[in-house]
Amino acid sequence: MPIHKRKFNPEDDLGFGTQPVLKNQPLIRQDGSINVKRRGLPFYNTANNYHKLITMSWGKFWLLVLSSYLIINTLFAFIYLFIGVENLNGAEGTNTYQHFWDAFFFSAQTISTVGYGHISPRGMAANSVAALESMMGLLAFALATGLLYGRFSRPTAKIVYSSNMLVAPYKENAKGLMFRLANLRRNTLIDLQMEIIFSYNENVDGKLVRRFFPLELERKRVSILTLSWTVVHPLDENSPLKDMTYEDLKGTQASVAILLKAFDDTFSQTVHSRTSYKCDDIIWDAKFTPAFDRDEDGTIVLNLHKIGDFVRL
Amino acid sequence: MPIHKRKFNPEDDLGFGTQPVLKNQPLIRQDGSINVKRRGLPFYNTANNYHKLITMSWGKFWLLVLSSYLIINTLFAFIYLFIGVENLNGAEGTNTYQHFWDAFFFSAQTISTVGYGHISPRGMAANSVAALESMMGLLAFALATGLLYGRFSRPTAKIVYSSNMLVAPYKENAKGLMFRLANLRRNTLIDLQMEIIFSYNENVDGKLVRRFFPLELERKRVSILTLSWTVVHPLDENSPLKDMTYEDLKGTQASVAILLKAFDDTFSQTVHSRTSYKCDDIIWDAKFTPAFDRDEDGTIVLNLHKIGDFVRL
Amino acid sequence: MPIHKRKFNPEDDLGFGTQPVLKNQPLIRQDGSINVKRRGLPFYNTANNYHKLITMSWGKFWLLVLSSYLIINTLFAFIYLFIGVENLNGAEGTNTYQHFWDAFFFSAQTISTVGYGHISPRGMAANSVAALESMMGLLAFALATGLLYGRFSRPTAKIVYSSNMLVAPYKENAKGLMFRLANLRRNTLIDLQMEIIFSYNENVDGKLVRRFFPLELERKRVSILTLSWTVVHPLDENSPLKDMTYEDLKGTQASVAILLKAFDDTFSQTVHSRTSYKCDDIIWDAKFTPAFDRDEDGTIVLNLHKIGDFVRL
Amino acid sequence: MPIHKRKFNPEDDLGFGTQPVLKNQPLIRQDGSINVKRRGLPFYNTANNYHKLITMSWGKFWLLVLSSYLIINTLFAFIYLFIGVENLNGAEGTNTYQHFWDAFFFSAQTISTVGYGHISPRGMAANSVAALESMMGLLAFALATGLLYGRFSRPTAKIVYSSNMLVAPYKENAKGLMFRLANLRRNTLIDLQMEIIFSYNENVDGKLVRRFFPLELERKRVSILTLSWTVVHPLDENSPLKDMTYEDLKGTQASVAILLKAFDDTFSQTVHSRTSYKCDDIIWDAKFTPAFDRDEDGTIVLNLHKIGDFVRL
Repeated sequence: MPIHKRKFNPEDDLGFGTQPVLKNQPLIRQDGSINVKRRGLPFYNTANNYHKLITMSWGKFWLLVLSSYLIINTLFAFIYLFIGVENLNGAEGTNTYQHFWDAFFFSAQTISTVGYGHISPRGMAANSVAALESMMGLLAFALATGLLYGRFSRPTAKIVYSSNMLVAPYKENAKGLMFRLANLRRNTLIDLQMEIIFSYNENVDGKLVRRFFPLELERKRVSILTLSWTVVHPLDENSPLKDMTYEDLKGTQASVAILLKAFDDTFSQTVHSRTSYKCDDIIWDAKFTPAFDRDEDGTIVLNLHKIGDFVRL
Repeated sequence: MPIHKRKFNPEDDLGFGTQPVLKNQPLIRQDGSINVKRRGLPFYNTANNYHKLITMSWGKFWLLVLSSYLIINTLFAFIYLFIGVENLNGAEGTNTYQHFWDAFFFSAQTISTVGYGHISPRGMAANSVAALESMMGLLAFALATGLLYGRFSRPTAKIVYSSNMLVAPYKENAKGLMFRLANLRRNTLIDLQMEIIFSYNENVDGKLVRRFFPLELERKRVSILTLSWTVVHPLDENSPLKDMTYEDLKGTQASVAILLKAFDDTFSQTVHSRTSYKCDDIIWDAKFTPAFDRDEDGTIVLNLHKIGDFVRL
Repeated sequence: MPIHKRKFNPEDDLGFGTQPVLKNQPLIRQDGSINVKRRGLPFYNTANNYHKLITMSWGKFWLLVLSSYLIINTLFAFIYLFIGVENLNGAEGTNTYQHFWDAFFFSAQTISTVGYGHISPRGMAANSVAALESMMGLLAFALATGLLYGRFSRPTAKIVYSSNMLVAPYKENAKGLMFRLANLRRNTLIDLQMEIIFSYNENVDGKLVRRFFPLELERKRVSILTLSWTVVHPLDENSPLKDMTYEDLKGTQASVAILLKAFDDTFSQTVHSRTSYKCDDIIWDAKFTPAFDRDEDGTIVLNLHKIGDFVRL
Repeated sequence: MPIHKRKFNPEDDLGFGTQPVLKNQPLIRQDGSINVKRRGLPFYNTANNYHKLITMSWGKFWLLVLSSYLIINTLFAFIYLFIGVENLNGAEGTNTYQHFWDAFFFSAQTISTVGYGHISPRGMAANSVAALESMMGLLAFALATGLLYGRFSRPTAKIVYSSNMLVAPYKENAKGLMFRLANLRRNTLIDLQMEIIFSYNENVDGKLVRRFFPLELERKRVSILTLSWTVVHPLDENSPLKDMTYEDLKGTQASVAILLKAFDDTFSQTVHSRTSYKCDDIIWDAKFTPAFDRDEDGTIVLNLHKIGDFVRL
């Protein structure tokens, strides 16, 4: 395996460090997330909380909004109870249970600024709390809806990658390591730039060290992604993978990280996508089959389910 | 036609694939959109829905907002009817029809948080639904207005291109393939970068294949677009189009895609514009006429209607 | 004047065209705006309207918001009058004048969703209009406040430039054309890139043509703007302005356009600034005096009023 | 000290000027802020006010919001008192003190658009003021919440840097000036670019002048920051710091400014981070110890508290 002939400089990391991969835990997972735990993150941190609120699932988000609404109203209900329900004009409850719900619904009407007025505050204390609550309500709801909109409009790329990398025929008498991708979003992606990083474990004086190096590409950039894009690393003399075998790759826990950068033309934002292939995802001697059809009017139809389709040769 | 002398590598796509153009269906339409259908897009997808809501026409958008408002209020009206109109204090309707409208307008007053209070909820059930509705109303309206503002402020470029490309005199004894453009927006465009991609069908062993290659430009970038910009591809020895004829282009369904990138100085955003020319849009032996006038105070006046004006030589 | 020795290609515009400058009307004004009128702009256009609403003065903006509020309420007041004031419960006016104001203030309470409820709608017609008005009010106010926030948060650079360009001593025995700038905002500007374009009228076969070319700079980019930046064009053998005189510049209506690009570190946005100097702004044989003081604790104090200060030599 | 062998051009500033550092006041502080005072900033300026409101501490921000709410309500309370409390239906206060609070809470209910309606305006004057107040309230609260959301979503990087720079062994028989960093945020940083600027005081003809020059790096850019990044300036023949000693650095008040640029993959925004090291922060003959552990399942665990850990050799 000619990989090891390459000279590495121990300090020349690519931001990945030199920790070997053990037990099949690649640094970049297939879904593009980074497989590293971090200890010592500050517990309370505005940016991290914002990050969590924006990236959590929709179910959790709605649960959080709803439960916050209930909890805050309950808290204010107790405050109004403490001040005395007699300070809420129009509250007609006759026992503590009913008093609580009068106060609770008055709070809900205040915090949402709906303010029907059939219940209204009387006296300094109740009025002050209500004035504060309506102010807080406006700010809190605006924040919630800001988050809601932020979740909707967050710039993301959704790329479908072929499930496998192929070692396929390429030019005359040569081979290339290939994968294929297409856009799963309705937006137009332009100015796409691809970076592929190969990594494997190396035994340096009996100690496992992880090595990383970028693979050269036939084409690193395309102007616009109209259909699919087949990315090719030529397996020629310059490639350290020229004569690689499955056993070589398996033995060194090799993996290939894919880093894609593109420009979302619809929202004028740069977006990124990542994925990774393990050695088990590589198929020798196969080639991709077309993922296109023709409509009756001559328009090309891209079938996104066929992006990963290939035939063995 | 010297185009075919150029060597192509089958894998060297520019993101356009190698599907030939049939029945005059270019990959990029004149309005800049991409002429490809896609099958297999996920049906429910936040980003795609957001994309639709932002890019749909204003008429459709308002219709959607209004009908959502009606539908949601109708739904809540039925819920209040189900709970019983006797739980809405102040509702004076005496038959089911009037009850429905009492509930409907109470719902509207609740969801918009206007809450006049001449109708107000009584009891746990009605109060709970009203509390939930006002909360949902705040979130829904904030989302609608977020979309409204997103539609207003979406970064876009509106470029007017000349309707034709001209084969015009250029320098001494030479010719160039030219088109002209100007900004239709009030914003200032700076740092404009142009990319032009020529494509045609080629017969490879009896099979039609689409070829793409970028055309060299006299100037690929201008610092600021104050007036109009005449983009020139010199038809010199380096140009594969040097001796092209209308028949060459027509027979191969040739087309030229224009990809423009610029920076919107007013809103500090990168914007893009695309268009395409078919061979029928190319005029041989003509040149653009000035699109400028002079004001009485010496100021230059750019007439946007004259961007495409030319004279035959 | 050695400028004319430079060869120009007529098609090689920098986006400025070749129209000569007449009556002292430079293409870029001193405040950075572009001095070109455009005819044929579409009258109704979302992006242009948004642009106007964001860039108009604060006075005009508030006047527009206030007058829209008055006009819309007046319109709705007439609708309620048309439906009949008897459909507004609690309206106590006894003549048409009072009826109008009852309807007007009811409309204001509805559109702002304050909804006190001492006046409330009765019947289908009044209720429907009120429901529609409160919905429109929510959307309109959200749009107004979106604009308000957009005006506040719009990324802009505010650079103070020296009023004059100086022909000052530079290195040993050489001279440079210099100007100085500093940041008038509290934000931090990093990665500043400068482009300077010199232009003048040239007589080509009896016809005035405007020529543009970039001037070489000692340093085109600085990493961070902590204090002030003195931008220098060396007047050496490579400079077409080496031996320029005031008369040369005046006779050709020469001017220098300054295009600055920077990154606003606080809000992570690219910002731009432009200005221009006419030949009357150039001072021969002078140099800038320091614009710095020292605080008692050793901190450097930059005095923004002194950015343009110079002494004649 | 070989630094002084380097030739400097007095006009070749890097945006830092040539003012010497006195009394240990470096231009860039350890927290990345710029240590320069500026006189002559315009007092009233939208962008600077926005900047202050976005960057002030959370405590100050909430205090400002709350006190504005109180002050505006107090102002409107006095206006309603001036118009006469008899124009507020339902206000039951019997002395001036109670009248004030009636007016105050009516104002709060109006500005927050809660509008219970147990107090409601009567007559032209009170109605007009209330209509204006509710409009202003909507705009003011939207602005406050825009700021709130702007504070939450502002793109920032939070990088933890090692407390010290080390002169550590590097390659065979060589040394390097090193520091280490990691990401304290949950977001993913990609495309990191590093710039390091060394500065010191030089005695030029008896006058202290500050010199700045960039240090060459082993690697200026990494594709993605998964773990930590050790940035290395090789102390080889090309380095002006090759044989530097503590005394050299101390005597010239030398310092090293670190400018980091990265792309926040989660929010698609470019972010920056800065810090600086003084000569007292440099440790000779030491090396960083690993900051990684292994989880039981093989995942790498980065311990952010150990980023600065080193051993002396």
